[in-house]
Amino acid sequence: MEGKRTISEESIVREIARAARTSGRPTRKSGVEVSIGDDAAIWRPKKGFDTVLTTDWFLEGTHFWRDWHPAEAVGWKCLMRAASDVAAMGGDPRCFVLSLALPASCAGTWLNGFLQGLMKAARRLKCPLAGGDTTRNDRVLININVLGEVRSGRAVRRNGARPGDRIFVSGRLGEAELGLKMARLLRKVGGGPRSPLLSKHLRPEARIELGKWLVTNRLATAMMDISDGLSSDLKRMCIASQVGAEIKLARIPVAAVQFRAKFSPLELTQTALHGGDDYELLFCVADRDRKRVPKVFRGVRLTEIGRIRKQRAIKLAEGSGKIVPLPPLGWDSF
Amino acid sequence: MEGKRTISEESIVREIARAARTSGRPTRKSGVEVSIGDDAAIWRPKKGFDTVLTTDWFLEGTHFWRDWHPAEAVGWKCLMRAASDVAAMGGDPRCFVLSLALPASCAGTWLNGFLQGLMKAARRLKCPLAGGDTTRNDRVLININVLGEVRSGRAVRRNGARPGDRIFVSGRLGEAELGLKMARLLRKVGGGPRSPLLSKHLRPEARIELGKWLVTNRLATAMMDISDGLSSDLKRMCIASQVGAEIKLARIPVAAVQFRAKFSPLELTQTALHGGDDYELLFCVADRDRKRVPKVFRGVRLTEIGRIRKQRAIKLAEGSGKIVPLPPLGWDSF
Repeated sequence: MEGKRTISEESIVREIARAARTSGRPTRKSGVEVSIGDDAAIWRPKKGFDTVLTTDWFLEGTHFWRDWHPAEAVGWKCLMRAASDVAAMGGDPRCFVLSLALPASCAGTWLNGFLQGLMKAARRLKCPLAGGDTTRNDRVLININVLGEVRSGRAVRRNGARPGDRIFVSGRLGEAELGLKMARLLRKVGGGPRSPLLSKHLRPEARIELGKWLVTNRLATAMMDISDGLSSDLKRMCIASQVGAEIKLARIPVAAVQFRAKFSPLELTQTALHGGDDYELLFCVADRDRKRVPKVFRGVRLTEIGRIRKQRAIKLAEGSGKIVPLPPLGWDSF
Repeated sequence: MEGKRTISEESIVREIARAARTSGRPTRKSGVEVSIGDDAAIWRPKKGFDTVLTTDWFLEGTHFWRDWHPAEAVGWKCLMRAASDVAAMGGDPRCFVLSLALPASCAGTWLNGFLQGLMKAARRLKCPLAGGDTTRNDRVLININVLGEVRSGRAVRRNGARPGDRIFVSGRLGEAELGLKMARLLRKVGGGPRSPLLSKHLRPEARIELGKWLVTNRLATAMMDISDGLSSDLKRMCIASQVGAEIKLARIPVAAVQFRAKFSPLELTQTALHGGDDYELLFCVADRDRKRVPKVFRGVRLTEIGRIRKQRAIKLAEGSGKIVPLPPLGWDSF
């Protein structure tokens, strides 16, 4: 919310404010009463709704590389992955706050591209910028807060899974990781033809509508987004719920047919089980409700992959019928 | 809100959660429904109140130095300065979210001290930790969000100052900057006797009660906190309000008598005008209401320092009666 003195910081805040105006302007409808240019953002919550607040680091050198990732993709992705945490509670994103630290050299072209991608994502999510803080740093540091809402008491937590519940995932798993692998091979994410597989890594989509639909229909007993990989995230859900799980390898929705040619079956399986950055939803549904979950929701496949068990272990049923432990081998930031 | 796989990140999240429990636990009273350990925090706003959301960077190498500043002071200050932005809107802090990136080497003693100071500030503010995100980085990066509330439509903005309004400041100005100067001289903030002047730099207090009192009594027409220095912050308020100001040098409350001996009169004046980090409140009051502002509010001095003018310039009336322009020479992060 700070706007500071020199031309460079004032000009950065002005550029951000200008980008915010041309795309996804805060309005009364979004609940934003006071946005950029004051000490804090003021947001008017709707009566009968809880506020969902998520925070997400997106750091140069840890989560993205400035020489690999187009600035516009950095802008898009930092907001989408923060919004995905709101989707994971069944919430609706309403506005967001941007904390941005950057080198003075990034204030021109890079900032411009970044803001374009950011505001494109804001339009997609109908989630305008409501404020922020900028400062100088030798690397780009991004921290995004999304403020959302969910009908009071209806947020879906990680701790509600019960033995017998069916485990579902949305979309296909591992595509973002395969896209990253491809980018590493090509060593140039920005140039060349835009492969749809690279897009899975660069421009994820948060499953907002699915999360809301599951809340509206009171279907999910537990939910989270798969940001670090199925094996790691399923384990977290099971720990929170004090249960275990058994999933079937043959059921896991690996990368789509058109992407398979370039990778071995083992690569497809491994990335589906452990690959991060897909931002699909992992959710549980009571056994009696499983038929109420459609095969496809608004073009996104929903797949039942296994069951919650009382015994606290995460297991994988292989094609042969053999059941083995599934270790959490997803992304870890430490 | 992420808790990731390996022992080190899980252990960091556990340590944070443990610290949060022992001091300033989220309760229904604080509005926090879901805190650490899920995808997002869930917060239940009170009916008839707007939500105040502030975000604040606190970066090693920019805002603090790990070898100078005790970890406990870093923890206290990062929360207090974020809360000060809520005070500046007249809001009441209710909970906060911590985004923390740190080197693995900081996971032990440093983190412990940091959390102690952080939770001490949380208790002081009655503002518990509601969630966060942790990741690895080679320097300590902190981003704090404070979620607060203010009765709907009553937040005090920067843009409400009108010609004729009286300009007030709380407390004394420049003490934090003088404390920093002293720390620079001593080159050891941590060791030695705890000087009250160093405390002004290390352990500021957000003027929450004053901000709330001004809102309750509908006294302030415009308000902000002095984080970067009076000259810079008054200019921002005037720009937002499309007005100018004239302040009297003789009225500026410089550092307290007991701190003056070590500094020249010019140093005292300069730091009072341009020194950052005081986190006092700068507010305007309509001329007819000026007598309603007490000289002292709960032990904090309130001083009328000048008037808002129609002419858009910031001027300083010197002791001699000479009126000179006041350039914005406060802290700038760029």
